[in-house]
Amino acid sequence: MKLHWHWNLIYINRPCDLNLIILPSRNRNNMAQDELVLLDCWVSPFCMRVKIALTEKGVPFEVRAEENLLSAKSLLLLASNPVHKKVPVLLYNGKPICESTIILGFIDETWASPPLLPPCAYGKAQARFWADFIDKKVFDGGKAIWTSKGEVEVEAAKDAFIETLKQLEETLGEKDFFGCNNAFGFVDITLIAITSWFLAYEKFGGFKVEEHCPKLSAWIYRCKERDSVSKTLPDSQNVYEFVVMLRKMFGVE
Amino acid sequence: MKLHWHWNLIYINRPCDLNLIILPSRNRNNMAQDELVLLDCWVSPFCMRVKIALTEKGVPFEVRAEENLLSAKSLLLLASNPVHKKVPVLLYNGKPICESTIILGFIDETWASPPLLPPCAYGKAQARFWADFIDKKVFDGGKAIWTSKGEVEVEAAKDAFIETLKQLEETLGEKDFFGCNNAFGFVDITLIAITSWFLAYEKFGGFKVEEHCPKLSAWIYRCKERDSVSKTLPDSQNVYEFVVMLRKMFGVE
Repeated sequence: MKLHWHWNLIYINRPCDLNLIILPSRNRNNMAQDELVLLDCWVSPFCMRVKIALTEKGVPFEVRAEENLLSAKSLLLLASNPVHKKVPVLLYNGKPICESTIILGFIDETWASPPLLPPCAYGKAQARFWADFIDKKVFDGGKAIWTSKGEVEVEAAKDAFIETLKQLEETLGEKDFFGCNNAFGFVDITLIAITSWFLAYEKFGGFKVEEHCPKLSAWIYRCKERDSVSKTLPDSQNVYEFVVMLRKMFGVE
Repeated sequence: MKLHWHWNLIYINRPCDLNLIILPSRNRNNMAQDELVLLDCWVSPFCMRVKIALTEKGVPFEVRAEENLLSAKSLLLLASNPVHKKVPVLLYNGKPICESTIILGFIDETWASPPLLPPCAYGKAQARFWADFIDKKVFDGGKAIWTSKGEVEVEAAKDAFIETLKQLEETLGEKDFFGCNNAFGFVDITLIAITSWFLAYEKFGGFKVEEHCPKLSAWIYRCKERDSVSKTLPDSQNVYEFVVMLRKMFGVE
């Protein structure tokens, strides 16, 4: 059974045994003997990162959707990530790897081509720094917008979020991508996944990213021209509707 | 001028140009041409990590102490880490590298012997997972103890902290060290640095780590037998007195 999993909004009530297989047309790295299973949730940007990276590498993987992360995590997830109990988990020949940027590092080391991290140690450190910055600032910064109550609080969260994006825009500079030699890489994957939530941030924050960060917006469009990104990112409207549901659950509105 | 910087508690009023040079007796990696300067604070476990790693590698480095992190950061720090404005920063031939575990990864890749991370990608991912766990849980978990007010709050923070240590103790199991092949490595460095704060946590939390986690306590003693650790870690009593000062500053008592 094949589905465009990322368009499916009713995951909470989907049967738990619905496993979907994504098979890229060509495995450039000839590692078909490895079994890769991703414990996934369609709306998680952290899961999207893993899917983009594996697709960039041309490595086939199975997606196992967590149907009800909010109230009934699968036994496989609990057994694979007993510490954090969170997706994504990449099962590599049955062995679990957790935390999205750590998984990205594993993928890059295991399947060399195309490289996601720069070749030199200093370049790697810089890429990891910005990925860490994105982890600490962007998703939680966006969350601060849609969980805020009252105009003053929303305005402050919005301003802080735009400030974060401006720092990233400055880092991008005149380059096409954040990666080494102007290539799409580790930092691009880390950030582009979260941009699927930007429409929700914009709607609840009352702003447009494009008006504040035109170069970063152009970068988003460039990334979306890549198959790995366009096939992975869910529709922003669906993410927005998911955030509307979260706000009701959390009593924000 | 040579000082045992880590015994010095009056760093807040020390002159800013007091630079200390640590020169290990032997540079096993023959990389003496590289200039390494660490922007440091004696009480920061994140800085301690970098000093332990460089000492393990036998790489000479200069320590430049930040004299007044709480109210007057040096221009060099602000220029080197404009994003977070925090120590540690490792200046590698003048180029800044920030965030302690990222610095550790850089050190391990640049000076191969002895290895801190496991050789295989899966082992690296596991080590990075536990270092990330320590980053997220141990230092902030300890801070929750000494910043808590009232018996109930302190008790809850203490219980959560002990739970975290028990998870680490279980991961250590019967091994001497967390590293690959029972060797002292990445995870050991990440955690042992924070143990210099344990006395403060114990005093403000009213507990003894040893009574709850005897194997982890034995691991602490084993680590302290290493020169890299014993020469780096400050006296726990001095850290405790520093935390007493912080509590007064933050109005905890």
